[in-house]
Amino acid sequence: MTAAVIPGSVHIIGAGLIGTSVGLALRRAGVDVTLEDSSADNLRIAVEKGAGRTTGSGDLPVLVVVAVPPRRTGEVVADATRRFPGVAVTDVASIKTVVLADASAADADLSHVVGGHPMAGRETSGPEGARADLLDDRLWMITPTPEVDVEAVRMVHRLITACGAYPVEMSPEEHDRAVALVSHVPQVLSSLLAAQLVNGRPEDVRIAGQGLRDMTRIAGSNLPMWSDIIAGNAAPISAVLEGLLADLQSAQATLADLERAPSDRGALDRMEDLLARGGRGRELIPGKHGAAAADYAVVSVMIEDKPGRLGRLFVVAGEAGVNLEDVRIEHVLGRPSGLVELFVQPSDAEELIAAFRGQGIDVRA
Amino acid sequence: MTAAVIPGSVHIIGAGLIGTSVGLALRRAGVDVTLEDSSADNLRIAVEKGAGRTTGSGDLPVLVVVAVPPRRTGEVVADATRRFPGVAVTDVASIKTVVLADASAADADLSHVVGGHPMAGRETSGPEGARADLLDDRLWMITPTPEVDVEAVRMVHRLITACGAYPVEMSPEEHDRAVALVSHVPQVLSSLLAAQLVNGRPEDVRIAGQGLRDMTRIAGSNLPMWSDIIAGNAAPISAVLEGLLADLQSAQATLADLERAPSDRGALDRMEDLLARGGRGRELIPGKHGAAAADYAVVSVMIEDKPGRLGRLFVVAGEAGVNLEDVRIEHVLGRPSGLVELFVQPSDAEELIAAFRGQGIDVRA
Repeated sequence: MTAAVIPGSVHIIGAGLIGTSVGLALRRAGVDVTLEDSSADNLRIAVEKGAGRTTGSGDLPVLVVVAVPPRRTGEVVADATRRFPGVAVTDVASIKTVVLADASAADADLSHVVGGHPMAGRETSGPEGARADLLDDRLWMITPTPEVDVEAVRMVHRLITACGAYPVEMSPEEHDRAVALVSHVPQVLSSLLAAQLVNGRPEDVRIAGQGLRDMTRIAGSNLPMWSDIIAGNAAPISAVLEGLLADLQSAQATLADLERAPSDRGALDRMEDLLARGGRGRELIPGKHGAAAADYAVVSVMIEDKPGRLGRLFVVAGEAGVNLEDVRIEHVLGRPSGLVELFVQPSDAEELIAAFRGQGIDVRA
Repeated sequence: MTAAVIPGSVHIIGAGLIGTSVGLALRRAGVDVTLEDSSADNLRIAVEKGAGRTTGSGDLPVLVVVAVPPRRTGEVVADATRRFPGVAVTDVASIKTVVLADASAADADLSHVVGGHPMAGRETSGPEGARADLLDDRLWMITPTPEVDVEAVRMVHRLITACGAYPVEMSPEEHDRAVALVSHVPQVLSSLLAAQLVNGRPEDVRIAGQGLRDMTRIAGSNLPMWSDIIAGNAAPISAVLEGLLADLQSAQATLADLERAPSDRGALDRMEDLLARGGRGRELIPGKHGAAAADYAVVSVMIEDKPGRLGRLFVVAGEAGVNLEDVRIEHVLGRPSGLVELFVQPSDAEELIAAFRGQGIDVRA
């Protein structure tokens, strides 16, 4: 990555977490960066972190990155097209059609506006948490419209590459439909499921296993941000939830049949069909690095919950030259011990098991 | 654990995965075990594995464990109370009221029947996969009715302890309500969410992140078993889904309001309330070993996806004397690198970060 990637300076509006991280990544790549923020504090911190410099007279960027909160993004994008006529303007909001609509309503020159959505985030916000490598290896959605200048699109591609991320191009509408399905609906559903626990008895929730834990992990994180995202993508989310609602109602009807007659073959078949459809959907999700999820073999071992016990597994795997694709620790209530599942390439499984057994590690076939 | 724990022999009906594992665990504890199975093959394998012996004349158990499929459990339990009058009979089915109803319909002597549900399972079935330690450290629900002989309950407690598991007592109805909430509904919902992916474009599913992966992990596993479980616990599952359905419908109504007016303060507040309730529910789930989930600190590091890289983290943690409570690997599409989150006691976080930094490991604050 060299400065030649972007032929000029990049101007970033909004020195928050993402804006400052983009600045740091660009500076790392040798790109000249100018910064502005309505908060003098944010601007000072971002400059001190080395994310760029304040603007001087005569600065003319080749690209403007708008990294302000989603609600203000459209308006600031529109303003940027007026301040920097003919210059490519992109943004980093996680919903795209609403930003375009807002920008259009604010009389933006849309021929130079290319939406973007770097798929990275952290629990924190503000420039303090920014990092040059925040976007490394991340997908960065890019959502050009048909009417946009092709050079502007190329410039955003250069930005993404310079930041160490991977561009994935789709239309704004496709983007919003996609994130509704794979991100927003799971978020809503995780919250809805977790909300049912509030009505349960504490004793019941106490016996929760790993399934419930996994399904409610994302519930409750950053509420104002999520309600903004959901508000800005209401229609695509609602469309997915509509399908879910229909399936849930049909599950309820089947359950009513099963309540009357638990052996009703037709009802059992309908329930099995519904679960089978879930299995098929599950298989559509790519595994790590795009591999099919089913491509891994699982090696299960039982370890004691003491410092170093988990580490030993990884050391032995490393010495055997086996790469661990994923690891899952199963939690057991009330006692320091646990089952660890290691995901490896199927061709590696036998070797790993042999290496573990050779070290007296308790492998469960 | 000594043979004195159970004052006599235990008879196990059904030498499948659980029955054979119970036999192995009891033999490990020095308890005399007799086995029977309608399959001569299963019986032979279980005996060869050392899970017990076949019955001889004059054998009289002090406890009978029925470990046959849920659909047949009630009937076999009833039969056992007739074959072994006055002897405690327990079972291992994962749903309890339906077993009692079936047993009652088959004229069981219910005064000696104590339902049980060891909360362990594996992907496999049959005696081949059985292990003496399958039930170690597991919760084992025990569901006595008011009319049951107190000595029978004590005997089942002894069984659980001898198998290395932890007894949790509740009524059959409470049990079925609890597992509906924490296990069956999450299973149904995971499948329903995954089923929506079948309608999505493959390109959309490709950008799936960790949230969707976690929420669909359990979808599609062992369909016939799950449809049986769901059929046997239809009413409690339906009751939880009813609450979920109501919340989902109210979410849809709020989304419709937000679609019309994304800035509608009332609608935003309603959405935020719903998400906040999810956050409260999430906090009710105990963390590992019963600790509150929020009790852990998270240390994030970026590693390369090569053999040994993950292991190095654990070695360094072990050398620093820091115990890792959990580990989560975030997947990044298309490139060999990844973010690893390590969960530790808050008092250990600073030390771990220092140890990592001392070894040049890329810690993200």
